[in-house]
Amino acid sequence: MTTLGIVGCGMLGGSFALAAKKQGCFGRAVGRDIERATAVRAKKINVIDGLWQPHEQVDAVCVAVPTQHIGSVVSELAAELSPTIPIFDVGSVKSSILADLPELPPNFVPCHPIAGSHKSGPSAARPDLFEGCVCVVSPTSASATPAVDSVSGWWEEVGARVVKMAAGEHDAGVALTSHLPHLLSYALVEMLLNACDANKNLVGSGFRDFSRLAGGDATMWRSIFVDNLDNLRLGFRELIERIERMLDDAESDPDALERALLDIARFREALNDE
Amino acid sequence: MTTLGIVGCGMLGGSFALAAKKQGCFGRAVGRDIERATAVRAKKINVIDGLWQPHEQVDAVCVAVPTQHIGSVVSELAAELSPTIPIFDVGSVKSSILADLPELPPNFVPCHPIAGSHKSGPSAARPDLFEGCVCVVSPTSASATPAVDSVSGWWEEVGARVVKMAAGEHDAGVALTSHLPHLLSYALVEMLLNACDANKNLVGSGFRDFSRLAGGDATMWRSIFVDNLDNLRLGFRELIERIERMLDDAESDPDALERALLDIARFREALNDE
Repeated sequence: MTTLGIVGCGMLGGSFALAAKKQGCFGRAVGRDIERATAVRAKKINVIDGLWQPHEQVDAVCVAVPTQHIGSVVSELAAELSPTIPIFDVGSVKSSILADLPELPPNFVPCHPIAGSHKSGPSAARPDLFEGCVCVVSPTSASATPAVDSVSGWWEEVGARVVKMAAGEHDAGVALTSHLPHLLSYALVEMLLNACDANKNLVGSGFRDFSRLAGGDATMWRSIFVDNLDNLRLGFRELIERIERMLDDAESDPDALERALLDIARFREALNDE
Repeated sequence: MTTLGIVGCGMLGGSFALAAKKQGCFGRAVGRDIERATAVRAKKINVIDGLWQPHEQVDAVCVAVPTQHIGSVVSELAAELSPTIPIFDVGSVKSSILADLPELPPNFVPCHPIAGSHKSGPSAARPDLFEGCVCVVSPTSASATPAVDSVSGWWEEVGARVVKMAAGEHDAGVALTSHLPHLLSYALVEMLLNACDANKNLVGSGFRDFSRLAGGDATMWRSIFVDNLDNLRLGFRELIERIERMLDDAESDPDALERALLDIARFREALNDE
């Protein structure tokens, strides 16, 4: 029976364990967590089959810890495991992880499944989390083809569409599609937190949709913001310029503003999600 | 049988007509629209009972047109109707409407129900739209008490919680809770529209939640941005400062950043919506 090891027993690691077992990629899953209580809870609710004991053999490892710790966890695993045993992560940034590695292990395959929600912890794990999502796979210059193929195959088995992308390209992209929206959402909710109470009556469905992103795990997001800071700064500069232009158009050329809003709304609708 | 007149037969006006009839506030509803075809469509799908003919008597008027037109519509109605017939609007800004009025009619009661979605048009109208929402009522210095009481009563009948607030206070508040989030969402979607195609693979549920606000009616939002521009500029300045501080903390004091994110997430959760 093949065994999956997971490091980090939260929503993403737990969901991969459940999904990979359900699809028959692995027979069982064992887990570790920086917070031992999290691993114990994951075992208790059957997200994993047991705690991953020191020196216990596994056939692959999924690293699902906050991004700032991924590099050190991968280094330790690479030192401990046979170089034919694939190690992959699920981190939301890629370049900073590679920068943290003293050398690139041949069995390490950086991954990022674009899935999840503002929920976190083992109890948020579910076997269908990756169905229909994109999983970015960013092989390093050292990644061995068999490891890349195995890992990509597992992601496809759990329902993801694999997209290969270089680490830097990935990080700039997710700064735009995920990290900047989260940062904006946090900042806006902070404004409301500091505003007078009467304003809390004025919260409608738009604010709720927008601010849902500010409900995420603070430790995870701190780590992402730190690790993708340069791309965030660049993206924020561009956003400021676009907003300044929209506000200037509102003042001096509202027809141009309306045309832009219409183009944006049409593009947004083509990303349809209902 | 009492008759409600609506000017603007889209989602908000149409929903008020449906809801007010359902609750027995009015026996029937007749409508006009700048786009005659919209009023005809509203009649066809029974959102209104008939087109509002010139000189046809009504017992109250709901003005549900883009904010830039509310002032002129209210002026015309005030000139045409008996001053005992309440006129109220549903516009998302209030001060600019008052500024557009050469004089404040005693029967005019500015209102803003915090309800709706990114949908628009008569087919999006529904009788339960206002159930559980807040409706801001911002009487002017000239608003007659009987008119304010009647209008407030109708909003309560259709399920809204009435909150009285001065026009300026309302406008600053909704800049934060609605207009700025919409502006940010439009700008961010515009960035994706202009980004390379590979980035479109990286769109996840966070981006979808955040960008849903950019799917709204362009004509309505142009009008709101123009009419609440000063508050938007102020709010955007504050947002920039907060984000700069978060990015600086990410660089030099990530523990402080994490504490702030945690406070924000807790506050967001208290606005719970699931």
